[in-house]
Amino acid sequence: MSTTHAIAAPGPGKPLEPTTIERRELRPEDVRIDIRYAGICHSDIHQAKQEWGKAIFPMVPGHEIAGVVSAVGSAVTKYQVGDRVGVGCMVDSCGECEYCVAGSEQFCVKGNIQTYNGVGFDGENTYGGYSRQIVVKDSFVCRIPEGIELDVAAPLLCAGITTYSPLHQWKAGPGKKVAVVGLGGLGHVAVKIAAAMGAEVTVLSQSLKKQEDGLKLGAQHYYATSDESTFKALRGSFDIILNTVSAELPIDSYLSMLRVGGAMVNVGAPSKSLSYNAFSLLGGNRVLAGSMIGGIPETQEMLDFCAEHGIGAEIEVIDAEQVNTAYERVENSDVRYRFVIDAATIGKE
Amino acid sequence: MSTTHAIAAPGPGKPLEPTTIERRELRPEDVRIDIRYAGICHSDIHQAKQEWGKAIFPMVPGHEIAGVVSAVGSAVTKYQVGDRVGVGCMVDSCGECEYCVAGSEQFCVKGNIQTYNGVGFDGENTYGGYSRQIVVKDSFVCRIPEGIELDVAAPLLCAGITTYSPLHQWKAGPGKKVAVVGLGGLGHVAVKIAAAMGAEVTVLSQSLKKQEDGLKLGAQHYYATSDESTFKALRGSFDIILNTVSAELPIDSYLSMLRVGGAMVNVGAPSKSLSYNAFSLLGGNRVLAGSMIGGIPETQEMLDFCAEHGIGAEIEVIDAEQVNTAYERVENSDVRYRFVIDAATIGKE
Repeated sequence: MSTTHAIAAPGPGKPLEPTTIERRELRPEDVRIDIRYAGICHSDIHQAKQEWGKAIFPMVPGHEIAGVVSAVGSAVTKYQVGDRVGVGCMVDSCGECEYCVAGSEQFCVKGNIQTYNGVGFDGENTYGGYSRQIVVKDSFVCRIPEGIELDVAAPLLCAGITTYSPLHQWKAGPGKKVAVVGLGGLGHVAVKIAAAMGAEVTVLSQSLKKQEDGLKLGAQHYYATSDESTFKALRGSFDIILNTVSAELPIDSYLSMLRVGGAMVNVGAPSKSLSYNAFSLLGGNRVLAGSMIGGIPETQEMLDFCAEHGIGAEIEVIDAEQVNTAYERVENSDVRYRFVIDAATIGKE
Repeated sequence: MSTTHAIAAPGPGKPLEPTTIERRELRPEDVRIDIRYAGICHSDIHQAKQEWGKAIFPMVPGHEIAGVVSAVGSAVTKYQVGDRVGVGCMVDSCGECEYCVAGSEQFCVKGNIQTYNGVGFDGENTYGGYSRQIVVKDSFVCRIPEGIELDVAAPLLCAGITTYSPLHQWKAGPGKKVAVVGLGGLGHVAVKIAAAMGAEVTVLSQSLKKQEDGLKLGAQHYYATSDESTFKALRGSFDIILNTVSAELPIDSYLSMLRVGGAMVNVGAPSKSLSYNAFSLLGGNRVLAGSMIGGIPETQEMLDFCAEHGIGAEIEVIDAEQVNTAYERVENSDVRYRFVIDAATIGKE
């Protein structure tokens, strides 16, 4: 065991505070990572507030982790000390079921082990990236290629894969029209990725406040969904609508903006049920789908793609002591577009 | 113009009665068909009762038409007198838009012309298959291959293509598990087609009343959805759930029976909105989709497939005078599995 500095929520909704935690001794296939940056994902806040069901406290959130390998177990051949690496939402899975074998560890039949707020197969609680160090099985570690700085890479481990996976699965690319609903932590990365894939990208945001940003990020069009005429103007337009917001949207109105055979893919989800009219799907062979993060091989593919296209998140780097303020600002949508904690400030006197 | 015998609904919900109608003179690209059989689709009843919005009366329903070519226009090269042919839900479209060019005439941007209860580009009302003859543009006529009798072929022109298209698009085949919801006019054909494609087929019906039939038609499993334990037993089972019923189903319960990445495709639709929880789609990258009939090239492909596999509908042939009784029986689900009108009895003294 080794002791490392961390920031933890001591109980549901309690302010995060400095603490120390234990990381396990390296097993043969383990990698120890000196964390450099950890992104703040909105789901960190939901979990720290215990809004998604019973959670484990104290909680060290963080599943957008970028750092450098500082030690490897005896069986590790893929990584060596000094390698630039990242860890996302998962740190383990059974490795044997059909989904794990297919590289879709997020759908492991035994359940994947979450990076934090989870319990490992060894019975130990998991603690996330708001920390100086983490120990992770090598098969859940991804390489961060040269060409992306670690600070802007960190958010890709969740926001990047969550948007890359559906864009890739639903075949965004040249000749395809993609709408991204919401220009936040997920949405702004989705715009960059979809544009880099060669698609014609439209942002659908509540207002035109971030229009200038959206166009700079790679969108060609920007519409306000608070303006009813948007839905009429864009009727039958899109091959893919990637919905990154958790608001309760009028689904039929959004489906009407799809072309024949088009798909609306949701990566955000409101807790309440949504309603739709079956004719919205029938008339045009339309699709309503969901997508949950992505598997490890696809996460590596995403990082390679982002490095190749010079894609990183737009970030505001903060010190550890600013984390509670940052949480408030995320809840008020007052961030452009992702907070990243400088791990060197965690536990610093 | 030529006069032909038909059965028509004189007004919304009125009993159908014998009448005569005019069919147009052959244009260069027209085919005149001596109708032998016309299937009764539930949508004929909805339209004759004006349940789907304002309809045109008198109405001659029928879009499941099988017959023999009795004359061809001067420019027709594809068909000759004596050919066995069929006509489905459409008789024209613009022919120029991207969807028409792609063979998806059902999504023509100018709107396809329905076989009945429609208005042609010439401004004339269309009359359907409950008739002795029909005149149709050659590009909307399909060949019925040897190997399917015309009576069992007729229902394939709607029920066949409506189920073949989604099964084909969503890749039913060997190694895939397909559930068919509802064992009626559409469902019984879906079971035959999915089984012929090589899929492992399960019928999900309200009760086990038709279990013996379902297994004979090619299903390997049969479950009653009135039994709550069905949903638990089949959790995460299916690659495709083809929903052929128009009832208001508990969508989340059905989605839970899909495997990761599986799709529930609806070809029937209730008029009321349905509700679902977005997490039902996210948790497993699941898909909710719609499918509306199919294009002409795919309809021909379906007929060829059915001929190759010896697939026809299970039918009860009736005389024209029984049509009103047949409508009542369809509404009471008292048919196994499709009524087909013997066109020789239309206008017979």
